[in-house]
Amino acid sequence: MKTDYRCVRLTGGFWKTKEDLNRDVTIPAVYDRFVETGRIDAFRCDWKPGMPNQPHFFWDSDVAKWMESAAYVLSREDVPGLRDKIETLIDCIEQNQGEDGYFNIYFTVVAPDKRFTVRDWHELYCAGHLMEAACAYFGATGSDRFLKIMEKYADYITKVFMIDKSAPYRTPGHEEIELALFKMYRTTGKKKFFELAQFFLENRGQPDNDEKQIFDEAHYAQSHAPIRRQREAAGHSVRAMYLYSGMTDLAEETGDEELLSACRDLFEDTVNRKMYITGGIGSTNIGEAFTIPYDLPNSRAYTETCASLGLMFFANRMLKADPEHPSKYADIVELEMYNGALSGLSLDGEKFFYENPLEIYMTERRRITATHDHEHWPITQRVRMFGCSCCPPNLNRVLASLGEYFYAWDEKTGKVYVNQFGSSTFAKDGMTVTQTTDYPFSGRVEIRANVPICVRIPGWCRSFTADAPYDMVNGYASFGPGCVTVEFDMKPELAGTNVGVVRNIGQAALRRGPVVYCVEGVDHEGDLHTLTFDRKKAADAKIDVNDVSGLPVLTVEGWRRLNVSDDLYAPLEEKFEPAVIRCIPYSSFANRGETDMLVFLSYR
Amino acid sequence: MKTDYRCVRLTGGFWKTKEDLNRDVTIPAVYDRFVETGRIDAFRCDWKPGMPNQPHFFWDSDVAKWMESAAYVLSREDVPGLRDKIETLIDCIEQNQGEDGYFNIYFTVVAPDKRFTVRDWHELYCAGHLMEAACAYFGATGSDRFLKIMEKYADYITKVFMIDKSAPYRTPGHEEIELALFKMYRTTGKKKFFELAQFFLENRGQPDNDEKQIFDEAHYAQSHAPIRRQREAAGHSVRAMYLYSGMTDLAEETGDEELLSACRDLFEDTVNRKMYITGGIGSTNIGEAFTIPYDLPNSRAYTETCASLGLMFFANRMLKADPEHPSKYADIVELEMYNGALSGLSLDGEKFFYENPLEIYMTERRRITATHDHEHWPITQRVRMFGCSCCPPNLNRVLASLGEYFYAWDEKTGKVYVNQFGSSTFAKDGMTVTQTTDYPFSGRVEIRANVPICVRIPGWCRSFTADAPYDMVNGYASFGPGCVTVEFDMKPELAGTNVGVVRNIGQAALRRGPVVYCVEGVDHEGDLHTLTFDRKKAADAKIDVNDVSGLPVLTVEGWRRLNVSDDLYAPLEEKFEPAVIRCIPYSSFANRGETDMLVFLSYR
Repeated sequence: MKTDYRCVRLTGGFWKTKEDLNRDVTIPAVYDRFVETGRIDAFRCDWKPGMPNQPHFFWDSDVAKWMESAAYVLSREDVPGLRDKIETLIDCIEQNQGEDGYFNIYFTVVAPDKRFTVRDWHELYCAGHLMEAACAYFGATGSDRFLKIMEKYADYITKVFMIDKSAPYRTPGHEEIELALFKMYRTTGKKKFFELAQFFLENRGQPDNDEKQIFDEAHYAQSHAPIRRQREAAGHSVRAMYLYSGMTDLAEETGDEELLSACRDLFEDTVNRKMYITGGIGSTNIGEAFTIPYDLPNSRAYTETCASLGLMFFANRMLKADPEHPSKYADIVELEMYNGALSGLSLDGEKFFYENPLEIYMTERRRITATHDHEHWPITQRVRMFGCSCCPPNLNRVLASLGEYFYAWDEKTGKVYVNQFGSSTFAKDGMTVTQTTDYPFSGRVEIRANVPICVRIPGWCRSFTADAPYDMVNGYASFGPGCVTVEFDMKPELAGTNVGVVRNIGQAALRRGPVVYCVEGVDHEGDLHTLTFDRKKAADAKIDVNDVSGLPVLTVEGWRRLNVSDDLYAPLEEKFEPAVIRCIPYSSFANRGETDMLVFLSYR
Repeated sequence: MKTDYRCVRLTGGFWKTKEDLNRDVTIPAVYDRFVETGRIDAFRCDWKPGMPNQPHFFWDSDVAKWMESAAYVLSREDVPGLRDKIETLIDCIEQNQGEDGYFNIYFTVVAPDKRFTVRDWHELYCAGHLMEAACAYFGATGSDRFLKIMEKYADYITKVFMIDKSAPYRTPGHEEIELALFKMYRTTGKKKFFELAQFFLENRGQPDNDEKQIFDEAHYAQSHAPIRRQREAAGHSVRAMYLYSGMTDLAEETGDEELLSACRDLFEDTVNRKMYITGGIGSTNIGEAFTIPYDLPNSRAYTETCASLGLMFFANRMLKADPEHPSKYADIVELEMYNGALSGLSLDGEKFFYENPLEIYMTERRRITATHDHEHWPITQRVRMFGCSCCPPNLNRVLASLGEYFYAWDEKTGKVYVNQFGSSTFAKDGMTVTQTTDYPFSGRVEIRANVPICVRIPGWCRSFTADAPYDMVNGYASFGPGCVTVEFDMKPELAGTNVGVVRNIGQAALRRGPVVYCVEGVDHEGDLHTLTFDRKKAADAKIDVNDVSGLPVLTVEGWRRLNVSDDLYAPLEEKFEPAVIRCIPYSSFANRGETDMLVFLSYR
């Protein structure tokens, strides 16, 4: 199965709005922040000790992701000034690339003697992001200047790591370059990039390697085992997703069944044991990492935006690599799109979350500040910029290439897969598909196609109707060419959690279609945690379209738990009064000032 | 109302066993640890830089509490060698007391130039504990050598703080000396000690004082407001309890209604908004402090043993100072005796908890160690010794003076108050009371008295019977002289929590009489948190006497929550299978190896 964002145009609805907001607000805002913090100027490589804005070793990657985003935009339209900005950056890279092909700002102007000496200093990660940007720019514009620069750099990396083996480590401390090299290989057709990717992947976690360990233990950077023996999601969650994405690329290219089976296990472990209901992954701020199965504390969830985006990358690759269950991978992509990844961006498009908790108790924060601020809590309001600003440009590039997730095609069967829903067109080699829908307000999707199509039946969907004959194949309804209207039942429902998750015992979350809901203090009087869902009434939630998020708001009749006595502890008795519970899409929480927020409530 | 442990003899049952264990095991064990760590030798004041075991500035207080405990034991019987140990220590103190009366090990051998310069370095706290020990030793033996030494030291403190005002602060950074000075006053009858206590209390938190603040803010050491304006329990919980005890002493001595009302407010705020069901107080390890109302997280509860003991001290003083509701104070004393204070001691009498959590999830700890051990979690097994070893000798002295809590008398009415239950005798100035009971196995208590008695009807008791006529007065059943058998209904019950406590929503704890129960992993297969109480069956719990803790074990029929699907999240549905839940007294948790523990379970 293949995907290509360039074959897709969004034509209206929720995601078109987000794509436009990204082009008009978010991409310019991220660029401006990068100018303000010196990241753009840094590419001139003229920083000297004593000057402000000392470049950090991950800055190249921040700007590279922004360049990649801008390239995706340019593939569709010529936004004034955008191409010039990229070209100016490419000028800088060209002028400062070494004779040998090397390019990295930090290791040129800050620590030139440290080139390829410290495994965790993101050097290969930066190279990988620049390669992704170069591939995107070539794909969007046909201009190969940037691509050639990065080919030369990749050749130098091959020399250092594969041929001379002159670096004191063999594999990157922050994975990313592996998946980037597969893009280089697919963009140029040159096998050497495949081979370098394979080198980095196959050498990872080998018992005889001399890799410097980070964070005291090898799990942090997925260096604890060779890739085929990695079967449980472990360590830094963003690193993990990038590695697993690269592994999936390799499995797809080679047809290596053992490797694909490792990728399947890693995916299952991630989504079925270590993922929040919002799609957030990485439970702890300590190492920004996965922990153990079912350890999913809501208020201290780390759940980095980049990790959710990384899971989208991994899932979309699995969708193409694993012919057995493609639809379940698209389910996870959709979960991230509407929830855990999207929550990283404010509704105005200018502010960002790095962490995406599932609970905000201002009281818990007050408890800490009552004495010292020694404990780590996620911030409660999105901000314009982070010191470590990986997430904003990562959102940029995904929102600028959403077509990548909407459609796929199978060259062997000539079928087009409709993986995500939203008004849009797909066109490739004479194949055309048109979707018209107000999804996710309703579950009604009209599709017109001149080829056979496979329409994903979402995992959340309990029943659906279609006005044309179909066969069910691997989670898809398979239709012949023509017109079809599919309607998914989108009744709101309460979701419970595997009993292994301690803090969710006796709690439920409200979902409707792909959207997970939360409650916010600003909509309710009194403590949020005394709100109680009514199991019999959740499906009758009133759907309100008057929501600035562009997604439905749900209003359900429920209960408010009351005290039965003035005592702190009293013989167990329950008392409730009716209460109306206003549920907003999780992705839009924290857009109305600092307030409590809960995804899970008790129920009766 | 008056109390005096010397008028009471325990004659059998649970507390007699604990008193004997304390005498035979715990007091010797604490002494041995103090020898091993250099605390005893330190009293020779011959430590020099470079030698091992550099004295810490709180060591005097550790040993002083041990001396106080030993004195209480000596009041009842001559344990071989015990008096010699105390006398040797008094020799050291006498030999090393300054001409001016000063005595402190740390400020003599480690930092002599720092005497009375650093408010938080426990100098007056150590002095206070030595005064308590001196009063106890005089009270137990009639020997006044130690008392004279401490009178001389108290006079010097008066000179430094009240007369010369030569210290750069006015009130202690760790309160304790206030309540100790009231003991000095009551023991010697000398008003000057009352006046010094009053000085420290009245100067606390005055806006014009120059007190160096600790931990960035004045709340930590209760220095944020003058004592009459302190109405909410705040800051370091042990410091708070000692201060509030001293305030109560002052209110009792002076009849100051405003001060008594502040003490009442502080007590109510403590027990009705900031206390765990076990009696534990001080929710956070950060500053070992109170936080905000209803902030009572179970797994990260700090709940220091000393804070529970401190609440016993405060409550027992309120019982005497506040004529309005004496029985509710005795309720809290009982709660601590059977739960939050007692849990600080292992069943073998040799090991101690400093913190007493209400949940142990080994998985949460594994989550942390999966990456780094950056977060604070209470230890899961009692240990023989702490670096900061305030709790073990604090348990020693309470367990050696339990009579203090059992009986009180009112000199005006000639009535004796039976506050705590256990086989025992009370004798004072011709008044005699004898209790015979197997409490808390049963709620049946036989009392024989030659004076009118008031028998506390515990707050947990829903009904009781008595075979003699009585009047109810302020929570006590008031009987004439003679014999009476009172029987408290001790049906087990589930207790719920004020809805303000987030983590207890939908959860209940099992109680029977004064004993709070918990479940331990070692008694159950599978995750403890999936065990679910049955509301209808809790009262029918089977009472098992075969428990090494000396307290009843309860076995209840309940449920085990099961998964309804293999998915991490699924449409809400509940599934249960019958399960037998074995509940052990909370105080005896963690005596059978490292295992999960929960006080609160869900219910249906």
